[in-house]
Amino acid sequence: MTQTRIGIYGYGNLGRGVELAVRQNPDMQLAAFFTRRPPETLKTLTPGVPVYHADDLAAHADELDVVIICGGSAKDLPVQSPAGARLVNIVDSFDTHARIPEHFAAVDAAAQEGGHVALISAGWDPGMFSLQRLLGNCILPEGRDYTFWGRGVSQGHSDAIRRIEGVVDARQYTVPVESALESVRAGENPELTTRQKHTRECFVVAAEGADKARIEREIVTMPNYFAEYDTTVTFITAKEMKRDHAALPHGGFVLRTGVTGVNGETQQMIEYSLRLGSNPEFTACVLVCCARAVARMAKEGMKGCKTIFDVPPAYFSPLSGEELRRTLL
Amino acid sequence: MTQTRIGIYGYGNLGRGVELAVRQNPDMQLAAFFTRRPPETLKTLTPGVPVYHADDLAAHADELDVVIICGGSAKDLPVQSPAGARLVNIVDSFDTHARIPEHFAAVDAAAQEGGHVALISAGWDPGMFSLQRLLGNCILPEGRDYTFWGRGVSQGHSDAIRRIEGVVDARQYTVPVESALESVRAGENPELTTRQKHTRECFVVAAEGADKARIEREIVTMPNYFAEYDTTVTFITAKEMKRDHAALPHGGFVLRTGVTGVNGETQQMIEYSLRLGSNPEFTACVLVCCARAVARMAKEGMKGCKTIFDVPPAYFSPLSGEELRRTLL
Repeated sequence: MTQTRIGIYGYGNLGRGVELAVRQNPDMQLAAFFTRRPPETLKTLTPGVPVYHADDLAAHADELDVVIICGGSAKDLPVQSPAGARLVNIVDSFDTHARIPEHFAAVDAAAQEGGHVALISAGWDPGMFSLQRLLGNCILPEGRDYTFWGRGVSQGHSDAIRRIEGVVDARQYTVPVESALESVRAGENPELTTRQKHTRECFVVAAEGADKARIEREIVTMPNYFAEYDTTVTFITAKEMKRDHAALPHGGFVLRTGVTGVNGETQQMIEYSLRLGSNPEFTACVLVCCARAVARMAKEGMKGCKTIFDVPPAYFSPLSGEELRRTLL
Repeated sequence: MTQTRIGIYGYGNLGRGVELAVRQNPDMQLAAFFTRRPPETLKTLTPGVPVYHADDLAAHADELDVVIICGGSAKDLPVQSPAGARLVNIVDSFDTHARIPEHFAAVDAAAQEGGHVALISAGWDPGMFSLQRLLGNCILPEGRDYTFWGRGVSQGHSDAIRRIEGVVDARQYTVPVESALESVRAGENPELTTRQKHTRECFVVAAEGADKARIEREIVTMPNYFAEYDTTVTFITAKEMKRDHAALPHGGFVLRTGVTGVNGETQQMIEYSLRLGSNPEFTACVLVCCARAVARMAKEGMKGCKTIFDVPPAYFSPLSGEELRRTLL
């Protein structure tokens, strides 16, 4: 078997997830880490795999088939992905939905220039959820989309709470409203407001002597993050935080309800859901399949920026078309 | 907009579903019906669209971009799909899983010879369920697959009952066992026997004076169809059959449970489900998206046999890549 040589660029939760996911795929070989920290300080789980400084990607691009860029969407990926795509095939998990067209354009220009393939916005949303939305829309053109997230930890919302004065630590869970989900499943085609779709549960460790009433008020009135939701705040100890909220679970639901028939008299419903023990580990698994697809597309001579919409599903698999048809079709 | 000219070959439940699905897609144009019956006897829902004899496909192939072959998998498609693919681009819903490799080979040879694209085994299983199985396997390589069908009408099982002496009409529902589904969702990774996964509910209209005890015994002991299942038989009147069992609902569940992490300590779960008011109408919707993809692949110069595993998902959509990224990614 020819192994695909994978580089991991950025070593936070996601990079570590990719490191673990590569181990589960025998056709993948972890070939290098890249970090902005001093390389010698990085403690990876895979001894023997070299750690380079992020600035040295160009020097090692030839040793890699695909680099998985594991930076954040706000500041890292808009720079790292185009820079990376100039040098090598890349995959990223850029997840700022509104800025995808702009990110696509920047990465596409760089990838075309470098002659590489870049796949952006891989993961589960954007990613698998997007794919389900696309399929649902194509199959049932007269219908409605519903996406619910959770129950799961939102890092962005947790961070927003942490920035409040007097907050030592925080974990925010996004929770889908069960009655709204049931209404969709019942084919009622509800019009749902933001408040009707999700609630937000906040667990907060306050500094000693901090004004908890003020912290709670600042959370529940925070525009964009919490004001539009039914938000609950629970103060807990640092010990409870560590014991009960260390994991990063997530998930959600994509539903497409639609009608067919002579006069739309037939109800049809598609539902896709994820229940993830670890959001970054699952996202990493998707990134690794995408890296496999990217390596294959590059080998076929393609170049430029791609998304999950552009990948023939067979390319995600190490199996041959014949094996796939025999075992999974 | 350039419309894709669709031919419907075979006018049973599925062909009629395709006729209705084409109406929901403005980029599709219904251009011809083909039937083995005397064409003038066919009552379609779309006046003005010509009806030709099935033997005349060759004479009209130039007027069509894609022909959707709506025959049965047992006897029709093994003949019709290769014959069609020699003349024109085709889509079929061949669903005898065990014979897919053989069908693929026959259709591929014909499509290569004719210079056309043929997409086989489209629908929901094989089809959308297969796609979910493939994605689940790629994302979570250390895991297990579960497919449950129902609650829904199985035509094959209904037909098997109808062949019993003294049976006037019959409808068989395949029903997933809720406790088995719950065990899978709970991450218990159960080993499930055939009997533990599904039950079979049979509604039977018996001829006057028929021996119902004998009919019931013949049903529940029928090998392959019923003997391996917990089967219930309910005798009803012809009037009840017509009133309560006229629809062809179906659906089911595809689950992939898997583990990630350093030592497989993280549970991850993917679930896809369909709840279909009409099995043939939903299958038809999938076939029509696949026809769109086939037309595009043919325009790009591809040829040969494809399956849903080979189609970039964007090809199912009438929207541009840019629109898809902006609205659905």
